[in-house]
Amino acid sequence: MSYEWLFQPCAVGDADSENAARAHQSQLTKPPGSLGMLETLAIRLAGLQHSARPTLENVWISVFAGDHGVAAEGVSAFPQVVTGEMVRNFAHGGAAISVLAKSLGARLEVVNLGTVNDPGELPGVRRAIIAPQTGNFCERAAMTPAQLDAALRAGCDSVAQAHAAGAQLFVGGEMGIANTTSAAALACAMLGESPATLAGAGTGLDGKGIRHKAEVIARALARFPADDDALAWLGRVGGFEIAALTGAYIAAAQHGMAVLVDGFITTAAALVAVRIHPACRAWMFFGHRSHEQGHARLLAALDADPLLDLGLRLGEASGAATSVPLLRLACDLHAGMATFAQAGVSNA
Amino acid sequence: MSYEWLFQPCAVGDADSENAARAHQSQLTKPPGSLGMLETLAIRLAGLQHSARPTLENVWISVFAGDHGVAAEGVSAFPQVVTGEMVRNFAHGGAAISVLAKSLGARLEVVNLGTVNDPGELPGVRRAIIAPQTGNFCERAAMTPAQLDAALRAGCDSVAQAHAAGAQLFVGGEMGIANTTSAAALACAMLGESPATLAGAGTGLDGKGIRHKAEVIARALARFPADDDALAWLGRVGGFEIAALTGAYIAAAQHGMAVLVDGFITTAAALVAVRIHPACRAWMFFGHRSHEQGHARLLAALDADPLLDLGLRLGEASGAATSVPLLRLACDLHAGMATFAQAGVSNA
Repeated sequence: MSYEWLFQPCAVGDADSENAARAHQSQLTKPPGSLGMLETLAIRLAGLQHSARPTLENVWISVFAGDHGVAAEGVSAFPQVVTGEMVRNFAHGGAAISVLAKSLGARLEVVNLGTVNDPGELPGVRRAIIAPQTGNFCERAAMTPAQLDAALRAGCDSVAQAHAAGAQLFVGGEMGIANTTSAAALACAMLGESPATLAGAGTGLDGKGIRHKAEVIARALARFPADDDALAWLGRVGGFEIAALTGAYIAAAQHGMAVLVDGFITTAAALVAVRIHPACRAWMFFGHRSHEQGHARLLAALDADPLLDLGLRLGEASGAATSVPLLRLACDLHAGMATFAQAGVSNA
Repeated sequence: MSYEWLFQPCAVGDADSENAARAHQSQLTKPPGSLGMLETLAIRLAGLQHSARPTLENVWISVFAGDHGVAAEGVSAFPQVVTGEMVRNFAHGGAAISVLAKSLGARLEVVNLGTVNDPGELPGVRRAIIAPQTGNFCERAAMTPAQLDAALRAGCDSVAQAHAAGAQLFVGGEMGIANTTSAAALACAMLGESPATLAGAGTGLDGKGIRHKAEVIARALARFPADDDALAWLGRVGGFEIAALTGAYIAAAQHGMAVLVDGFITTAAALVAVRIHPACRAWMFFGHRSHEQGHARLLAALDADPLLDLGLRLGEASGAATSVPLLRLACDLHAGMATFAQAGVSNA
């Protein structure tokens, strides 16, 4: 396999634009710093967009769907057929992310990477089928090298499409029954944490179910070498959609497009991306702090300060999408407020 | 004075609509509870709007401005003329709340209750002048009974206008140099806390400035009887804009219109409103947790769980306005998502 593209340089922001934006913020009619994160977001975006007046009109959302062999271990509250059923629901406009994308005026792409219950051709769904599901990583590696390569490239392909469409922000999401188990296993391997610490309720496990999930993860981790090779772990215990997100986050940084990370699973993918290519971290914003146990630990590992904390734990990019208006308002304030001089307002 | 209107009954929500909304949420294609506060917000709004499918298209923002005699004690980082200057800035579209209101498509009304630097007639500014400023409450009561009555009624008048315009949400904001001192004094009186606990940096005091501010508050509090009469304290150490907000919150509850509370000063007004008329609490949503010291204590006293925590401390209703898209997305998700049955998705 050829993973060379993963290691190509990331784009870099423009310090002059960022400094100009910072100076502009200090002149706006408000006490300095009083708009908190709304100021720092606009300043960061200015650097990333190489523009002292960043905008976020064009937002692209890609939701990657794929099934997980580890679902056979009974680690989810929902049956595995739901992954394919939800792909259909995304396409028909009935899922949370469908509604949010419409409200935001964002482009929504769904990428089917392989589900046991194939919903077939659907409007707005790109078929990039790798296999009906990953291998059960309690028994073997989740992906072959060829499958891992295909999944990473599927994410890269979505980013290329988003970039060609003029997107200023790439929002990645995921759907895949049992994928909190995969993400928790990845997180344990990356962070050296115990499964009991990072396994959570997912779609709704009780305490007994969570303990079983942690045991499944512990069993899987013991099958593989105790190294810290992020790309290798992605193939060993990841999922098609998680690998696609990893590829997307790296590709977006290479294209010079900011990304907005969602919850537990996408943050696991973001951590893998940063471990593979640390420079991609500069392009990441974090939409929310998920209610899923383990997300806080992943966010801390990425030194991430998310925008929202609303107790969400749905995935599908729903938390990230919910935070998009905040980024947009930050841009609006930055561009639209008067300076002290313009408004004739006395400064401190 | 005649404060009887303050004690007229508040409207009550509809339990049937709230229950119908709760039942509907449980059928939507997501794990139960996985949209966290976005679910509970929609359910609460359903009850308040007497509709199983609440909407928030029509949002009204009133920013109340007034000057404070206590500014003479040197408790603000900005000069007192800024209050009037900012009223002009609101009207001309250059302030943070002007930009936010435009982005949200919300109606913005500015109410001038009296500033030492009177900006005169301006488009979008309602003149309800009470006096150039309140009394310096280190020397005498901030307001006479007639002034307190006029300020409370000014808030009630804004709500009546908002209600007549079909507003589904009333967002109150404030502008007034030194008004964190007034709000902190009110909060101390209501909560029995020390000024050192509740006095904060406001628009940008340093440590020495904050200590001086706390001393000013302590001196003022010592001048008045140590009772817990909220309405009396509003007149003793409040401000015109704080009293207007108090009147507005009570009037909105009487009209059956939800309110979105902003930061430290509006929350102090909300606490006074709830102490005067506890039933108005049911109509309150809280937009954000301000960076201003003391806000957390006020929120706790109101058992309030705000939507955002972005380190904002500007006032003007800016934090509340920033949270409006979250309430709207909650309504969109509630109305737009498919049920398991509609989408043909298997339930847990």
